[in-house]
Amino acid sequence: MNILLTNDDGIWAPGLRALYQILFSAGHQLTVVAPLTEQSAVGHAVTLSSPLRIKKVNDGPFQGFGVSGSPVDCVKIALGTVYNLQPQLLISGINNGANVGVDILYSGTVAAATEAALVGIPALAVSVDHFNPEDLSPQAEYVRDFIHTIDWASLPPRRVLNMNFPDLPVPECKGLRLCPQTQAVYEDWYDERTDPRGRRYYWLCGEILPQNLEPDTDRTLLTQGFITLTPLTFDFTDHKLMHQLDASVAGGR
Amino acid sequence: MNILLTNDDGIWAPGLRALYQILFSAGHQLTVVAPLTEQSAVGHAVTLSSPLRIKKVNDGPFQGFGVSGSPVDCVKIALGTVYNLQPQLLISGINNGANVGVDILYSGTVAAATEAALVGIPALAVSVDHFNPEDLSPQAEYVRDFIHTIDWASLPPRRVLNMNFPDLPVPECKGLRLCPQTQAVYEDWYDERTDPRGRRYYWLCGEILPQNLEPDTDRTLLTQGFITLTPLTFDFTDHKLMHQLDASVAGGR
Repeated sequence: MNILLTNDDGIWAPGLRALYQILFSAGHQLTVVAPLTEQSAVGHAVTLSSPLRIKKVNDGPFQGFGVSGSPVDCVKIALGTVYNLQPQLLISGINNGANVGVDILYSGTVAAATEAALVGIPALAVSVDHFNPEDLSPQAEYVRDFIHTIDWASLPPRRVLNMNFPDLPVPECKGLRLCPQTQAVYEDWYDERTDPRGRRYYWLCGEILPQNLEPDTDRTLLTQGFITLTPLTFDFTDHKLMHQLDASVAGGR
Repeated sequence: MNILLTNDDGIWAPGLRALYQILFSAGHQLTVVAPLTEQSAVGHAVTLSSPLRIKKVNDGPFQGFGVSGSPVDCVKIALGTVYNLQPQLLISGINNGANVGVDILYSGTVAAATEAALVGIPALAVSVDHFNPEDLSPQAEYVRDFIHTIDWASLPPRRVLNMNFPDLPVPECKGLRLCPQTQAVYEDWYDERTDPRGRRYYWLCGEILPQNLEPDTDRTLLTQGFITLTPLTFDFTDHKLMHQLDASVAGGR
């Protein structure tokens, strides 16, 4: 297949490199357009107030284009007028850290996939539930086999498949489960510290409380050792509430 | 009401100041926690890789807290352990530039409202279809009156009301219309330029082609002179596709 690769951990990240190596060895035609620097948790950020630069990255057999922007910028650069690519599939990842539940809002990995899906490119986001994984080749091999099980061209438009690997060696995973996102949100707190010059600063911390997790949703199944797969869609309009409000708020017009 | 104000144009932006002045004069209890610098199009970005700093901003009658991060950071700072606020309503805006259709993905204005909604705070995002509006007091006065027409506490959880003003003086607007987002996407292109040192750089440009716009959606109605209101929800899971794929992909487990 003709595949566009990107991520949010940056063009030097091991997850992207593992995907590249495994998919290249399998004979796929690959183009990499990825951020030059780590862009985790940038969400669907797009660079409007500053220009973008592109740097060609040749690193042994690896070739790609590094962009001085966000994952969404990379997809726009790749599919837009700069490179005009028309891949059959975009794969974003493999991300260090799961993207489940509300993570989807914050995730640059998923945002890149969304951006492709919006303009009609089938898209897969891949993440692993570990912030510093040692070797993602087994996950990349799983992805290599998985992409042949989906008829990408027949998926409904504007959909992303969001895959997450548990924090387990792939052979020990319990298999693939289709599941919805958890609705549980993070309990956030800030760690307040003082810098060497006596000024206060704040680090974000947060966790999802286990008692808030529903069974058979992505976070729960991932923790149980399943590989999870969630199809995502992006119509934010709440049509039911729209009609209710239309009767009340705008009833007088 | 006890209202939290934020935005993505930054704590010095006229749209935020207009809201502050009008709502303050109307007797509301206001807290401002807003980005120190412009954060347009940052989407749901959250700052994880660097610490945040907070600066108190006193500017005549205006008081607020400026945060060295994104709109979502500001909401987390305000509602989380730093200030522990429990406002009855969050208002994000008034943003320079409309947030309709897929703008909702990129918009820091909407992301701030979403972040509040996720933790149970009713939220209103307000934008105006002009990138450099002169005086947003009339829009702020409209918002002041509008917020009394909604029973915020009785809205379903995790909803944002997304309001957009057309590029018209408020008295000339055709009234308020409840409507869905347009599904039309931008046709992007990059303006390729060369800097004074001979290096190439790229500016993102884009437009939604009028022929792609559906009638009675936000972009269309806004251009026709209506004030638009769209209730947004954030369940991304495509349950129908999930069940279809479950039968095919994971059928063999």
